[in-house]
Amino acid sequence: MNNFEFQAPTKIIFGRDTIKQVANEIPKNKKILMTYGGGSIRKNGVYKKVMEALSEHTVMEFGGIEPNPKFETLMQAVEIVKNENIDFLLSVGGGSTLDGTKFIAAAAKFEGDPWTILSEGAEIKDAIPLADIITLPATGSEMNNGAVISRLSTNEKLAFHSNFVYPKFSIIDPETTYSLPEKQTVNGIIDTFVHTMEQYATYEVNTPLQDQWMLGLIKTLMEESKKVLQNPTNYDARANVFWCATCGLNYWMSLGCIQDWSTHMIGHELTAFYGLDHGESLAIVLPRVWKNRKNDKMQKLAKMAVEVFGANEFLPKNILADITIDKTKKFFKSLGRRIKLSDYGIDKAEAAKKISERFKERKAVLGEKCNITPDEVYDILMHC
Amino acid sequence: MNNFEFQAPTKIIFGRDTIKQVANEIPKNKKILMTYGGGSIRKNGVYKKVMEALSEHTVMEFGGIEPNPKFETLMQAVEIVKNENIDFLLSVGGGSTLDGTKFIAAAAKFEGDPWTILSEGAEIKDAIPLADIITLPATGSEMNNGAVISRLSTNEKLAFHSNFVYPKFSIIDPETTYSLPEKQTVNGIIDTFVHTMEQYATYEVNTPLQDQWMLGLIKTLMEESKKVLQNPTNYDARANVFWCATCGLNYWMSLGCIQDWSTHMIGHELTAFYGLDHGESLAIVLPRVWKNRKNDKMQKLAKMAVEVFGANEFLPKNILADITIDKTKKFFKSLGRRIKLSDYGIDKAEAAKKISERFKERKAVLGEKCNITPDEVYDILMHC
Repeated sequence: MNNFEFQAPTKIIFGRDTIKQVANEIPKNKKILMTYGGGSIRKNGVYKKVMEALSEHTVMEFGGIEPNPKFETLMQAVEIVKNENIDFLLSVGGGSTLDGTKFIAAAAKFEGDPWTILSEGAEIKDAIPLADIITLPATGSEMNNGAVISRLSTNEKLAFHSNFVYPKFSIIDPETTYSLPEKQTVNGIIDTFVHTMEQYATYEVNTPLQDQWMLGLIKTLMEESKKVLQNPTNYDARANVFWCATCGLNYWMSLGCIQDWSTHMIGHELTAFYGLDHGESLAIVLPRVWKNRKNDKMQKLAKMAVEVFGANEFLPKNILADITIDKTKKFFKSLGRRIKLSDYGIDKAEAAKKISERFKERKAVLGEKCNITPDEVYDILMHC
Repeated sequence: MNNFEFQAPTKIIFGRDTIKQVANEIPKNKKILMTYGGGSIRKNGVYKKVMEALSEHTVMEFGGIEPNPKFETLMQAVEIVKNENIDFLLSVGGGSTLDGTKFIAAAAKFEGDPWTILSEGAEIKDAIPLADIITLPATGSEMNNGAVISRLSTNEKLAFHSNFVYPKFSIIDPETTYSLPEKQTVNGIIDTFVHTMEQYATYEVNTPLQDQWMLGLIKTLMEESKKVLQNPTNYDARANVFWCATCGLNYWMSLGCIQDWSTHMIGHELTAFYGLDHGESLAIVLPRVWKNRKNDKMQKLAKMAVEVFGANEFLPKNILADITIDKTKKFFKSLGRRIKLSDYGIDKAEAAKKISERFKERKAVLGEKCNITPDEVYDILMHC
């Protein structure tokens, strides 16, 4: 096991009928900017619940944060925060709204051009305190210190991390997910699956507890996903999927492990250039990264075949790894997901060229061994 | 899944050669009282490492905190804290030293008789900040807000909880456990096993992720324990067992689940009256609590037989539950542990009478359904 440090400062409030607790968690003297997305919170009743709970607080609003939240949009909110002396941000919605809110929180206190937080990893020294009512199980952003932001003008999608943007609290009421469109539910399931695999499917450093936990999450996710798609108002199934999503990216499961994240890096570019949903891009890329890097990931993929897919442990590791790759594709397809670039009308030769060139410009090498070169990214995308 | 709230404020610093980091984690202007136990930290080199790291800090010492830390001893430390204006407590040693330090931290700021914190659950409103270098994988105290304290004069052993006594940080260097006597290693393994089972083996409320995690911990613990006993300086095995112990009682695994804790309540009384080690008492009590409450715990015990002990899932649940009880006893015995009261020269009729009468006085009913009456405690102990 590798050395690690860990702290999870976010308070989680999980369960039925918990939205009203927002009133007790934010001091009355705070001037709140409530951020949200395209307005689904007005249709599903969440907006009304939050506003009722905060009737004795001072609340301003900033709506319209997009999926893959845009720098340009978020900078409008930064202006409001500064002009109105906002001192608490409350994100109400999914992971995109929350990621955007984390950026607003950091950018409002940043001296210099906030884009450098993303483009150069400029250090964040302070942020407006923020919290969230999260309504989409997917990004795990509700219990971590990261965010991913896009820029329209340059087709870029970049991540940043800072302990200053940990949510103070996150309220998770699984009932808010009853009304999600099936496509978004599936995106969230795939996102959770791939988050877990970016932390699991690497090389072995003797972390049996962490492996049990990550594979246990995958088993649970696969079983509970089926129930959610069959019956979108099955409370326990919705709660179990949501808790998988939160735990899928609070880093708790994988402390002391090696991590990959190449699928995400390539997937982000597919979103930036072609507008694919995050969950769509991941389902396309993951199986081929595994195929290309099967030797590096052999032990872990083989273990997964036995533990998750019930394969015979005496089969050759090579065969077991193939079983995991194959069963993972089948799982994505069972969710109704298309998993080829051509399914989305994308010319793979063009995508491979554009994206590998961008990695070349950035001098980026990907994966847990930093051995996925831009040329290999080209090869991966040519097989997607 | 039940509703829950969770926050884990303790920063964990885990791995080889991490003790020196203590210097960066405590501000230089703090006046530290370093607490420890019977002096094993002088033999295993930990004392020297801590003192070297803190050479630029102001450090006083308070040694001699016993296993099952005593109220009488701890109150001496409280006097020192008050007289010397100590403003940071650093526990160096095992869970007993840390539990004792948590009590010192709370008692030093408590108005009134500090014993009422334990006897009456009197509210704690403040505490001296504390942290630890933990050297024994067992109690999980390094990442939770609880402590168990004993009183010599009345043969009592009682617990308290308060968010004010969460350690600010915990440093875990698995190499500090290389020199542990085998008896203490085994006590810690059993403590971790039973902590996990107090949270797992209850009734079903549809928490598949949590079940996977708790059973995954048990599988890992059983495999890694064997390696530790065969080779006490196997770093990875020591690291894996320690991480199991910490995760066994930070409540993370069992959020949204039902909890039991009757084995601990009865075990505490065996320690208070007869001086049994905590780990010894738990191994005696757990299997019989399960036997008595098999119907209540049937689903979970049966699931464990399949997932952990590889039993055939088509066997009747009743038989599967018996397999888990039997295999658990065998596991304890495989660690060299005796699991009957008579093995320790204790008259079970006397113990059953004394302890059941004490629960009668306290009007205590135990277990996840609060249905283990003092009369049933009598029956349980008569079969131990």
